[in-house]
Amino acid sequence: MTFGAKTSGSDDLKAIISAISTLVEEATFVATAEGITFRGMDPSHVALIDISWPNSAFEKYECDSDIKFGVRIDEFSKLIKRADKKDSIEISISEQNMLLVTVGKNKKYKMRLIESSATDTPLPKIPYDSKIVLSSSKFDKILGDVQVVSDYLTIHTSDSKGDFSGKGDSGEVVIDLDKEDEEIEEISSKEDSVGTYSLEYLNPVVKAVGTTAGFITCEFSSAKPLRIEFKVANIGRIHFYLAPRVES
Amino acid sequence: MTFGAKTSGSDDLKAIISAISTLVEEATFVATAEGITFRGMDPSHVALIDISWPNSAFEKYECDSDIKFGVRIDEFSKLIKRADKKDSIEISISEQNMLLVTVGKNKKYKMRLIESSATDTPLPKIPYDSKIVLSSSKFDKILGDVQVVSDYLTIHTSDSKGDFSGKGDSGEVVIDLDKEDEEIEEISSKEDSVGTYSLEYLNPVVKAVGTTAGFITCEFSSAKPLRIEFKVANIGRIHFYLAPRVES
Amino acid sequence: MTFGAKTSGSDDLKAIISAISTLVEEATFVATAEGITFRGMDPSHVALIDISWPNSAFEKYECDSDIKFGVRIDEFSKLIKRADKKDSIEISISEQNMLLVTVGKNKKYKMRLIESSATDTPLPKIPYDSKIVLSSSKFDKILGDVQVVSDYLTIHTSDSKGDFSGKGDSGEVVIDLDKEDEEIEEISSKEDSVGTYSLEYLNPVVKAVGTTAGFITCEFSSAKPLRIEFKVANIGRIHFYLAPRVES
Repeated sequence: MTFGAKTSGSDDLKAIISAISTLVEEATFVATAEGITFRGMDPSHVALIDISWPNSAFEKYECDSDIKFGVRIDEFSKLIKRADKKDSIEISISEQNMLLVTVGKNKKYKMRLIESSATDTPLPKIPYDSKIVLSSSKFDKILGDVQVVSDYLTIHTSDSKGDFSGKGDSGEVVIDLDKEDEEIEEISSKEDSVGTYSLEYLNPVVKAVGTTAGFITCEFSSAKPLRIEFKVANIGRIHFYLAPRVES
Repeated sequence: MTFGAKTSGSDDLKAIISAISTLVEEATFVATAEGITFRGMDPSHVALIDISWPNSAFEKYECDSDIKFGVRIDEFSKLIKRADKKDSIEISISEQNMLLVTVGKNKKYKMRLIESSATDTPLPKIPYDSKIVLSSSKFDKILGDVQVVSDYLTIHTSDSKGDFSGKGDSGEVVIDLDKEDEEIEEISSKEDSVGTYSLEYLNPVVKAVGTTAGFITCEFSSAKPLRIEFKVANIGRIHFYLAPRVES
Repeated sequence: MTFGAKTSGSDDLKAIISAISTLVEEATFVATAEGITFRGMDPSHVALIDISWPNSAFEKYECDSDIKFGVRIDEFSKLIKRADKKDSIEISISEQNMLLVTVGKNKKYKMRLIESSATDTPLPKIPYDSKIVLSSSKFDKILGDVQVVSDYLTIHTSDSKGDFSGKGDSGEVVIDLDKEDEEIEEISSKEDSVGTYSLEYLNPVVKAVGTTAGFITCEFSSAKPLRIEFKVANIGRIHFYLAPRVES
């Protein structure tokens, strides 16, 4: 078995690991000739992350047979954070079944692997009626604006208009999306849509991926899951799925 | 009833709300044709804040009959903090008796009002023998210098000289005011004065108003309350009164 | 008795006091005509700090008879931190046996002295086989790199090569020292050496002295104490001794 993957910088891997760490404590990655993938849900099955990181996104990539490897995300995250922005990160698996992580030229980590517990998690198959493309920093700011009054974000689209809103004990807020705003790239809807989603899951993942993502794509339908796509290294991507709030 | 007030930026309102939040949890504002005022004391009646914010300090101001409205300061503060420095903030009251707060162009908050509990608090009527005008950042620094040895600030003036000092278990400090210092604008006294005031109240309000205030005016007499004036938007002002320490 | 010492800035004294504060709560300084010295160990006698600050390192220095004075380090540290970078700090002892600390021109502190409890602590007398000279910021970074997997730093030299490493439950790391790196000035060894030292003591002192130190010198022998020299004001120095880990 030969497996080795080397990034040209550290930002993308940091973003991916941070995103995963908002949902799970242990993560099982799958490496194939095509690249590395990860799929996992939070313990209460409200959110799902699906990551695809094709071989062409790496500076070097080699994998001659499919492998799975499991890591404790907090341990992996600590190592990765030791990398400077420009440090390459190279991972491979040793004969003693340790994860070898070389950060930059001189830092060589070995990390214990854990038993991989990946089960096949199916993706929600739903048509998305509405789509909003905006900068991740704009979205992050809006989540903060809503959080001061609510624990939930409501997204609403009608034709090519949209707004974010929230409502709580102390008050409510509506934030109209201004199509002239250069941080908003697209608002479109095949059908008027309204969905409400927990900020408890949205906030951490948006902060985790941070500005690495540039523009992000939010897709949803009324009372259906929200899917957010974060681009990574132009050709890879993180899909974050979040179940709608069920009114009790 | 028509009431509406719009600021041109957010710094002044942030400073005012922060200052109030150091003393009370619930605040009742009074709006009249002349502008908005607030007066309140901390629960132990050691400190009093008296705010006058004339209509001319607003970009737009309208009020055709006197009204009172009460808010929970922490809730109001959270909303206001969502404003960028240049965002205008517009407040009015809805027919459903909610406070409408529009931040910038697109963020529209509604906040529940609370029953206003304002009672007429009389202001201390005392002649002030001494006056020190200095930059708020200089004053903030001096409070920090004193706090490392004491919980109380003593202010002393004699003719046109002055010093701040403090004394505690571990030691003491005297900070002479240097009239050549361009951060000190004026030191004057009709009579030698010395007063001691709690840093527990002084520190938070000075930090809350922060550099928005520019120069501040401290007036006091021996063993009498201290009054600090913070200018807001050139024509409005915050008066902060603090009772002297009673030696036990 | 006449004693007075005045620094030209505050960085060096801040570094010295910070370094001492990582080991002890009470410190006894000795002032002689030659300068000021301090020597002390942590309560469990794992680490020792030995400071020599010659009279020529001060802007003004005067001491006509040997004196000892004891301070509570946290109280002294708080005062010193009130100094701006360029503020001079002048210390002397009053007739009432208080430490007088003048910060800049106008801030005059008096601090209570405590009974000095200095006992003669002998220095470890050992030959050092190996020596690594590197920038304090590089060393600080390496300590962080190791700490993500271990509580101990292992230093290893062989001829003119060296590496830092660590090993813990979750994994291990080896960081090769690159002699081309301009942050590494020297690696030399009379004999191959390997020593393991607690990050619990190393990390705080390296952070405390910080970038004030510029380049630092680490000397050690196999299974013997490590000595780190931090230069202060070019001519003074802090020697930090750390006992090797005893494998249980």
